[in-house]
Amino acid sequence: MTSESTETGLDAAESASVIVERDGEIAIIRLNRPDRLNAFTHQMGEEIQAVFDETDADDSIRAIVITGTGRAFCAGADLGGGATTFELDQQEPGEVPRDMGGQVTLRIFASLKPVVMAINGAAAGVGVTMTLPADVRIASEDAKFGFVFAQRGLVPEAASSWFLPKLVGLPTALQWAMGAKMVPVAEAHERGLIQQVVPKDEVLSTAIEVARDLTSTTAPVSVALTRQLLWRMAGAPSPWVAHEADSKAIFYRGTMADVAEGVTSFLEKRPATFTDRVSTDLPDIF
Amino acid sequence: MTSESTETGLDAAESASVIVERDGEIAIIRLNRPDRLNAFTHQMGEEIQAVFDETDADDSIRAIVITGTGRAFCAGADLGGGATTFELDQQEPGEVPRDMGGQVTLRIFASLKPVVMAINGAAAGVGVTMTLPADVRIASEDAKFGFVFAQRGLVPEAASSWFLPKLVGLPTALQWAMGAKMVPVAEAHERGLIQQVVPKDEVLSTAIEVARDLTSTTAPVSVALTRQLLWRMAGAPSPWVAHEADSKAIFYRGTMADVAEGVTSFLEKRPATFTDRVSTDLPDIF
Amino acid sequence: MTSESTETGLDAAESASVIVERDGEIAIIRLNRPDRLNAFTHQMGEEIQAVFDETDADDSIRAIVITGTGRAFCAGADLGGGATTFELDQQEPGEVPRDMGGQVTLRIFASLKPVVMAINGAAAGVGVTMTLPADVRIASEDAKFGFVFAQRGLVPEAASSWFLPKLVGLPTALQWAMGAKMVPVAEAHERGLIQQVVPKDEVLSTAIEVARDLTSTTAPVSVALTRQLLWRMAGAPSPWVAHEADSKAIFYRGTMADVAEGVTSFLEKRPATFTDRVSTDLPDIF
Repeated sequence: MTSESTETGLDAAESASVIVERDGEIAIIRLNRPDRLNAFTHQMGEEIQAVFDETDADDSIRAIVITGTGRAFCAGADLGGGATTFELDQQEPGEVPRDMGGQVTLRIFASLKPVVMAINGAAAGVGVTMTLPADVRIASEDAKFGFVFAQRGLVPEAASSWFLPKLVGLPTALQWAMGAKMVPVAEAHERGLIQQVVPKDEVLSTAIEVARDLTSTTAPVSVALTRQLLWRMAGAPSPWVAHEADSKAIFYRGTMADVAEGVTSFLEKRPATFTDRVSTDLPDIF
Repeated sequence: MTSESTETGLDAAESASVIVERDGEIAIIRLNRPDRLNAFTHQMGEEIQAVFDETDADDSIRAIVITGTGRAFCAGADLGGGATTFELDQQEPGEVPRDMGGQVTLRIFASLKPVVMAINGAAAGVGVTMTLPADVRIASEDAKFGFVFAQRGLVPEAASSWFLPKLVGLPTALQWAMGAKMVPVAEAHERGLIQQVVPKDEVLSTAIEVARDLTSTTAPVSVALTRQLLWRMAGAPSPWVAHEADSKAIFYRGTMADVAEGVTSFLEKRPATFTDRVSTDLPDIF
Repeated sequence: MTSESTETGLDAAESASVIVERDGEIAIIRLNRPDRLNAFTHQMGEEIQAVFDETDADDSIRAIVITGTGRAFCAGADLGGGATTFELDQQEPGEVPRDMGGQVTLRIFASLKPVVMAINGAAAGVGVTMTLPADVRIASEDAKFGFVFAQRGLVPEAASSWFLPKLVGLPTALQWAMGAKMVPVAEAHERGLIQQVVPKDEVLSTAIEVARDLTSTTAPVSVALTRQLLWRMAGAPSPWVAHEADSKAIFYRGTMADVAEGVTSFLEKRPATFTDRVSTDLPDIF
C-alpha cells in the first residue's frame, strides 16, 4: 500500500476486534484478530455496525474499504466455544435471536457510501458472506472462499441466500452452498464473486483505488441515492417501484445546488464541485 | 440498410421529435433531432409513448425497432435549459411529477410486440436508460454508453435501477452507475448490455433482421403473452405467480385457433399460419 | 454408468410412465416412454410428483437424478390428441385448471433433496421447462433444447417465465422464448442453462457423481434448508426476508446434534457423521 494511512478519530478504533484507519476520504476497516485469523465474534459484528453508523454520518468520508490484518481475511465464526458455539441465548421465551452476520450485512446493505472489500486471504463462513453486500470485491491471488455451512450442520447465513445468487447466479450459488465448497479465487473470479484478483501486497491499494474511482468525480448525495436504488430495487416486484423512487430523486435533486453545478460544469467542460452533503441534504425517496 | 422503408400512416410520424417508418411488419421509430444529437425532450417522451399505443393496437405491426438519426443514438436529456433543466413543475402542491424517462421505459416494458434497439452511436443518460426495457440491443462499433447521472448531481432514472442489474448483474450495474462511467461498446457487449456489435451502417438492418427472426414463425398472441410473462415475472416473489398466469394462458389459448393450427402444422411438418389477433384475442392472464 | 443400479421399493416404479431406480443414496427417475421419445403426459406429471413425495420422506435418499430412457430426454407434451391436445377440462365452471408442467416444477422447487438433471438427448417444450427447477443440469453432446411454445400458439409454461431468466439472464430468455428457438447444447452451456456437457453414455454417471458430490460430506438437514433458502430467496423483496429465515435456521440448528458434530469434527480434523434426519428434524424457518 503506497498511500499514507493516518489514525482516525472514530471511536471504534479503540476496540480490539477492528481498527479503523483513514486514507484521505476513504475509511479502512481492518478485521484485527490476526492470531485467530480474524475470526468473527459478536463483538466484531457490533463494532463493524458502529463504524458504518459513523461513516454514514461523516461527510469527510466518501467510501469504506474492509480488509483483514495478517495472512487471512476472516476464518469465519470463532469456534472457541467448541460444540456449543452456536447455542444462542434467547432474550425472551419464544424469541429468535437475530443472526449477527445478518445484522452486519444488512448494515452494509444500507450504507450511504460505496463499500469495497480488500480480501487479503482466506475467507470462510461469515468471513465470505459478510463481503456479499459490498459493491466491489478485490481478492489476493491466494484467497479462497469457504461456503462450508452444510459441513458444520449449519446453513448459509447473513442473508447470503438473498445476496449470493445476485452476484454469481443461482446454479453457482446452489452448487457452492449445498456442496459446502471451498472455492479457489480463480473460480470465484470467473463466476463473478470477485471483480479483480491481484497480488497479496496490492489488495488494499487496489481496493482504495477502486473506492476513489467511484467517488472522485461524483456527487456524494447522488452516489448515496444510486447505491440505495440499485441494492433495493434488486428485490423490487416491478419497475414501477423504481419509477416512484427515482421520480422523487430527480424531482428533489432537480432544485438543489449539485444539479445546477453538475449541468453547468458539464456545459463549461470543467470538473464539478459538489456541495450538497449526505448528512443534511439526502432526500427521502423510499 | 438494404430493406426498403416506406412511410407509415401513424400520426406520430408528423412530429418533429420522432419519425415512424415501416419495413414490412416492423415499425421503426427514429429519434430525430440530429442537430441536438437526438437529445431527449418532454415532447419526445410523449411521442414515443404514443407510438407504442399505436403499435400495440395495429395487428399489421409485429415488432418495433428504435434508432437515431445522424451520428448519435441519443445524447441524453436536452440541457438547453441549463442549470434549471431538472427543475420540474408540480401539478399540485406536494405532488411529485413522474420522471418522463420512466414513463417511456414503463411503456416499452408493457409493449405487446418485441422491441429491438438499433443503437447507432453514443447513448448517454436517458439515451441509454430508455434502451433497457427492450428485448435486444444491437450497437454500432463506435457506440458508448454514459451512465453519467452521478456526475450531474442526479441519479439513474427511468426505472434503470430495476432494469440494469437484470441485464448486466448487480456488481457491474453498481460500478457503472456509482462511478458515472462512460462504457465502451466492447465492455457493454462483454457484460451483457449489448447483444451484438456491428459496423455503423449495419446497425439498423441487423436490428430489423433480429426483429423479423423473433416474429416470422411465431404466433403474435403467443409472442405478446411470452413477452409479458418474462418481463413481469423477473420481479415476481415466487414461481407460483408465474404458474397462475401461465396456467391461464395455456387454458385460454388451448381452445383457440392458433393452438390447433400450431399443433396440426407441426404434425404435418409445414409452416403454421396463425390467425388470432393481438388486438382482439389476447387473454387476460395477469 | 459404472455404478450399480438396483430396483427400488418405491410404488411409482410400477407405473408405465416413469421408472424409479436407486444407486446408493441417489434415486434415479427415468422418463420411460421411449417409443414416444418420453413425451410428457398427465399421468407422467402425477407420477413424478408422487416420487418426490417419497424421496422427501425417505431419509435413505439424499438426492434425485432425472433422466430419460432411449435417445431423447423428453420430446415435450404428447401430441397424440392432435389439435385438441391443449383443450383442458374444467372441474368447475369458471375454474382455470392448473398447468400440469407447473405442478411438476413447483414440486421439484419444493424438494428437500438436491435434484440433478441427466439430459440424455433432445428436450422440447415441457421437456426442457421441467428441468429448470433442478439444481444442476448435465447434458449429452447431442442434446438440444426446444423453447418452441410460440410456434405452437402456446406460451412458455411450467412457471418457466420465473425460472428461466434466473438461469440464463433476461435477454437470453427473451430471445429463446419469443423466438421459439431450438437451442444447440453448446449455446445452452455457454449461456448457463447447462452446467456440463459430456458424451451421451456418460450423462447419467456424471449426474450421479454430481449428486453425490453435493451430499457426501454435508448434513442432510442443512442441505434441505440451504436448498429452500436459495430457491425461495431468489424472489424475495429484500435481504430482510432471508435474515428472518436464516436467523431461525441458525438458532434452531445451533442446539441440535449436527452442529455439535459439525464443529467438533472440524476441530478434530475428521469427517463428520450427521444424525439429524430430514423426516423428523427439519425446523420450520419460513
